[in-house]
Amino acid sequence: MEAEIEFIASGGITSPRGFRAGTTCAGIKKEVKDILDLGILFSEVPCVATALFTTNRIKAAPVLWCQQQLKSGRATAIVVNSGCANACTGEQGLADTKEMAELVAKGMGLSPEDVLVASTGVIGQPLPMKVIRAGIEQVVLSPDGGHELARAIMTTDTIPKERAITVRVGESQFTIGGVAKGSGMIHPNLATMLCFLTTDAAVDIDFLKLALKKAVDISFNLVSIDGDTSTNDIVLIMANGLAENKPISPGSPLAEAFQQTLDQVCIYLAKCIARDGEGASRLIEITVNGAPSVAEARLAARTVVSSPLVKAAVHGSDPNWGRIIAAVGRSGVEVIESKVDLYIGQVCLVKAGKPLPFDRQGMVQVLSKSEVCVSLNLNLGNGTATAWGCDLSEEYVTINSQYTT
Amino acid sequence: MEAEIEFIASGGITSPRGFRAGTTCAGIKKEVKDILDLGILFSEVPCVATALFTTNRIKAAPVLWCQQQLKSGRATAIVVNSGCANACTGEQGLADTKEMAELVAKGMGLSPEDVLVASTGVIGQPLPMKVIRAGIEQVVLSPDGGHELARAIMTTDTIPKERAITVRVGESQFTIGGVAKGSGMIHPNLATMLCFLTTDAAVDIDFLKLALKKAVDISFNLVSIDGDTSTNDIVLIMANGLAENKPISPGSPLAEAFQQTLDQVCIYLAKCIARDGEGASRLIEITVNGAPSVAEARLAARTVVSSPLVKAAVHGSDPNWGRIIAAVGRSGVEVIESKVDLYIGQVCLVKAGKPLPFDRQGMVQVLSKSEVCVSLNLNLGNGTATAWGCDLSEEYVTINSQYTT
Repeated sequence: MEAEIEFIASGGITSPRGFRAGTTCAGIKKEVKDILDLGILFSEVPCVATALFTTNRIKAAPVLWCQQQLKSGRATAIVVNSGCANACTGEQGLADTKEMAELVAKGMGLSPEDVLVASTGVIGQPLPMKVIRAGIEQVVLSPDGGHELARAIMTTDTIPKERAITVRVGESQFTIGGVAKGSGMIHPNLATMLCFLTTDAAVDIDFLKLALKKAVDISFNLVSIDGDTSTNDIVLIMANGLAENKPISPGSPLAEAFQQTLDQVCIYLAKCIARDGEGASRLIEITVNGAPSVAEARLAARTVVSSPLVKAAVHGSDPNWGRIIAAVGRSGVEVIESKVDLYIGQVCLVKAGKPLPFDRQGMVQVLSKSEVCVSLNLNLGNGTATAWGCDLSEEYVTINSQYTT
Repeated sequence: MEAEIEFIASGGITSPRGFRAGTTCAGIKKEVKDILDLGILFSEVPCVATALFTTNRIKAAPVLWCQQQLKSGRATAIVVNSGCANACTGEQGLADTKEMAELVAKGMGLSPEDVLVASTGVIGQPLPMKVIRAGIEQVVLSPDGGHELARAIMTTDTIPKERAITVRVGESQFTIGGVAKGSGMIHPNLATMLCFLTTDAAVDIDFLKLALKKAVDISFNLVSIDGDTSTNDIVLIMANGLAENKPISPGSPLAEAFQQTLDQVCIYLAKCIARDGEGASRLIEITVNGAPSVAEARLAARTVVSSPLVKAAVHGSDPNWGRIIAAVGRSGVEVIESKVDLYIGQVCLVKAGKPLPFDRQGMVQVLSKSEVCVSLNLNLGNGTATAWGCDLSEEYVTINSQYTT
């Protein structure tokens, strides 16, 4: 069956049926008045839920809490704050996270185990529980609350990041919504990214785990702003089943449409994060074709998009393509110089390892656009991947050298 | 036997007996007039020689030449140019490298196989052979030429980097000299580092290979400026035996003194490179103790010193220590949060994973010094390592975004 896909204008995390959200200015970000810094996402019915977490060995208290609760494969709500990461905060941090879950559960008639917690912000500082307690009481949930939630989780982000897509397959119709934050590892620093995804589709937990892993591998796992990894990263998906479809499992009629839609939402949000990188003025998209394997294509693409020298050259619109070749050369991926093709935009700069003459001024213009696309063909196999990042600007350094002082 | 070690004031690559060097302004760096860009290092007698090379899959033509010639374990001279890396230049690049070796060999009555070649500079551009041919003819060798050679290999380096140490053990006396360049991967970009080492000690080739590997592992392999790896990196050592000692082999009386001295020269030069990082105003030294193994200590130290967020925080004298903990957490090394101790300078900021109160203004002063020392104890084992790097400044970005345009 053909799937009809529709982007929902102004869609977001509360676009799928049965999800509500609310936020408040609790006062966690002391240095800015009247800024949203606390939010709750809630589903009218319990959800099948799973998440992927930071691989950092130092994990913030809310990460540990979510890992514990999600063993059940279920959740109903998540409370999130920005301005303080609640990381490196020891026993007190764990107690504070638990209290946040308990307060939300009490207000909503849930068990604390049904409530997930996420925090993003400075690490090594205790949560200001007084304002958080008061804040949680103030939150009013609404079916349009998704947009506010997108703002409440922002740190150095300059724009909220949301997306929703509705899919029709025969008689079935479901929606996937998503919200993300991420811009570097700063202001409330070390909080590289959070992403919450919702859907009204009914989905088997095992399929949901697999689908999330697949979608993240080709989206958030291929974004680099500065190579630093947070102690607080979470990508969470909650499926409440209100679409009343037969629960999706591998091979079921909706499986492919669900995966494709989830991929689209995640890639869109991932590109939003790359584009909004701290101090960035350009989105950089690196596609590697012809790698010996997909894994190697991903590694090569990620290495190039992470290279500070490539990023700085793009910032200056400098067609210094040797840096791209050098970055792929050090990526660990098999590269044979005499086989490599390199394109920037539509222009071929290197063919079979041989530099070609090019119009320098034209190339400067290509590099000055808001999206710079680089394509490498290693001509060694069928592995393909695309990664996203941003240019490296003086402003990135300024932002990141002047936080806590 | 006790070893007496003496740093040679104004010592360098030609301090060991029998080495001479000379340079010229060949005109390879067209944009700057009268700047040294070509040099030759020569030993009066053939040397036992070995080198370590970039691990980049894309290797410049001179790297391929040196790898081929050094299979013999012998060399007599090296010719080096800055301003052009002769990388990604295909067959022509290989032919140009060979011609450089042939021209030097002819002028000195050597075989081309005795002459090594190194290049550093922009990649993807052919060597300007006309000026190089003329330049090679102009070079006049002298026993004091080492200092000029230190300048001729500079690219964005702001200071020449040289060192020599003389060692006396009983009746034996030998000297190790060294010169290095490296400051990022720019101006003549992609040329992260070159290092040439000379000694008048007689050394067995197998021991020399081992000793060089050991010294590089604790020096240049623990320096990070921006994480990018060049297509042209070479660390070369030439031993001409004019000290007339019994050739040093593992376990021989001079072996330990030789290794220690080589380590010292390499560490000194590595620190010079870190301190002279593009746009840098501080040397950052990260020591990791208590790692499960030395390899893990090195990985942890290198990860912290490479973190753009740690580097930016140091640049702004911002005591944002959470970034250090987060960097070690993502390094891949075993870390148990509740065991970690963190010191900046002499001040303990985290003890057994617990943040301690500290004098913020005092810490800003510690972070404003020209050398910032950070020490982590993972308290898990006996692995120890020290890595060096520099702060990340706006100027780094400016330098690297405005090269070829």
